[in-house]
Amino acid sequence: MHILITGAAGMIGRKIAENLVTTGSLGGRPVTKITLQDIVEPHTYGSEETAIFPVVGDMTDHALIEHVMAERPDVVIHLAAVVSGEAEADLDKGYRVNLDGTRALLEAIRRANYAPRVVFASSIAVYGPPFADPIPDDVELHPLTSYGTAKAMGELLVSDYSRRGILDGISLRLPTICVRPGKPNRAASGFFSSIIREPLKGEETVLPVGEDVRHFFASPRSAVDFFLHAATMDTEALKGHRALAMPGVSASVGEEIAALREIGGDKVVALIRKEPDATIQGFVHNWPANIAARRARDHGFEAESDFAGIVRAHIEDEHGGKPPILA
Amino acid sequence: MHILITGAAGMIGRKIAENLVTTGSLGGRPVTKITLQDIVEPHTYGSEETAIFPVVGDMTDHALIEHVMAERPDVVIHLAAVVSGEAEADLDKGYRVNLDGTRALLEAIRRANYAPRVVFASSIAVYGPPFADPIPDDVELHPLTSYGTAKAMGELLVSDYSRRGILDGISLRLPTICVRPGKPNRAASGFFSSIIREPLKGEETVLPVGEDVRHFFASPRSAVDFFLHAATMDTEALKGHRALAMPGVSASVGEEIAALREIGGDKVVALIRKEPDATIQGFVHNWPANIAARRARDHGFEAESDFAGIVRAHIEDEHGGKPPILA
Repeated sequence: MHILITGAAGMIGRKIAENLVTTGSLGGRPVTKITLQDIVEPHTYGSEETAIFPVVGDMTDHALIEHVMAERPDVVIHLAAVVSGEAEADLDKGYRVNLDGTRALLEAIRRANYAPRVVFASSIAVYGPPFADPIPDDVELHPLTSYGTAKAMGELLVSDYSRRGILDGISLRLPTICVRPGKPNRAASGFFSSIIREPLKGEETVLPVGEDVRHFFASPRSAVDFFLHAATMDTEALKGHRALAMPGVSASVGEEIAALREIGGDKVVALIRKEPDATIQGFVHNWPANIAARRARDHGFEAESDFAGIVRAHIEDEHGGKPPILA
Repeated sequence: MHILITGAAGMIGRKIAENLVTTGSLGGRPVTKITLQDIVEPHTYGSEETAIFPVVGDMTDHALIEHVMAERPDVVIHLAAVVSGEAEADLDKGYRVNLDGTRALLEAIRRANYAPRVVFASSIAVYGPPFADPIPDDVELHPLTSYGTAKAMGELLVSDYSRRGILDGISLRLPTICVRPGKPNRAASGFFSSIIREPLKGEETVLPVGEDVRHFFASPRSAVDFFLHAATMDTEALKGHRALAMPGVSASVGEEIAALREIGGDKVVALIRKEPDATIQGFVHNWPANIAARRARDHGFEAESDFAGIVRAHIEDEHGGKPPILA
């Protein structure tokens, strides 16, 4: 089996590739080849069974995509995107990558003419207020960012191209990924991860919102599972509704902190410094608090059952079970 | 006031232009100039008060759109589109006009940098089965054609560009327009109009489906009113949800025929010949039967209250109140 991952140098892409190399299979079939596209060189190493082919270049480079699709990967996992903040700051770049890049990929697949499985990374950014609690599966999309708009448009294209038989697509609306490993980034929602990640490293972190703020999360581990499941699931059962809200954990900041205390104790929690930020407080009302994701669960997608499970997954996957402060 | 109408040679565009020239005003302000864009020369004549400027060319011609937007029309009514059947038969042309053409227009508006009112003609083709009865306002879109997909994508762009303050947009999901004047066309749904229009001219017509088939209609007169209302309404009240399902009449073919009998009698109805067509019968399950359109009604959009009203509007507008067979 040959898998193409776009945006493969990102956190999720890297983890998917590593999982495929480690297990050496997908849906019971051996993975012999993985093509990793990104604008920077993706650092994932192959094995004797699985060859890695890095392709460095932009999704809007038609010749590059054409070249990649000529190899007819069995599964295309499309992660490449400009993130929310950047797409908001630079309208042209956001739509060029997030909309035109997706369309260029689908068009290259059309020209390759063999209808591969395509898994498109959409986002809960497609939802906008007023939010039902929980948000049901059949709700109209009201994205409040250009990022969410382009993701909603990408979903529509994936559905239409699938209906026409050009590809066999599925769009996954990912919850906010938490705990995101690595350094703090400038995303307004970064604190949801930082307040767990930094204290477990023994470092101070800032909480800019109140403990009552609620949001919807899945671990990186669950996100990887979503993509692997979508890559081989029966899409006929979707009956043409090819965009699925992924399951996750609805948790308030207070519940995040309680889970951290349960696992790490008071000295870890003491590293969270409350420093309210009016700008970020203003954003939180635009973020969904809870999503039912019943269809996805019915189709075999699974996530953690509570926030403690998310913290434990982080400790296992990023600290080998032993975070510095608890060592 | 200066109004730009794209796709102005079509039936709705022509009627909107004629209405504006006849009344000479929009929302209480004088209409001094109307620019009519289409790929063929639009045949609408101006008056002493209202000058008509025809622009012949394609919506995907960036220089042309740029040129038109440089005149900074106060209102842009965007009707230009490749119709459903053609967009389905020619994927490239459909997306080029229906998606890229819309985007080119919005980008030209962005460069003109003055945030005009934009009214975008969307369609009930954004909906797909399973259909609620009636379809509520907040339902997820599942278009079953590339035409409907591009319309749903256009709605998302209009909303995002409005949110960003680039324009002040509103998208109108038009019911099937009935009774469509003129010659029978090859649209699969054409019979909904033909079974009224042809008999009133004293001509035979074919009914390819059963009398129980139900669909959702608005008269050309109502459609014109929708656009004129949207051109001047308070969009702040929409609270960012800028796509509205327009009101209309849910009627079965049997109810259409009953309305025709009520108005024209048995000899008119006798001109409908039943000739079931399996292909068309197969399509009808993908067409919505009834739409609540509560938000639109709350925001002042109005349509006929029953199908007899639609037949009467046709007789008044196309036959001066006296159709040939009843003369």
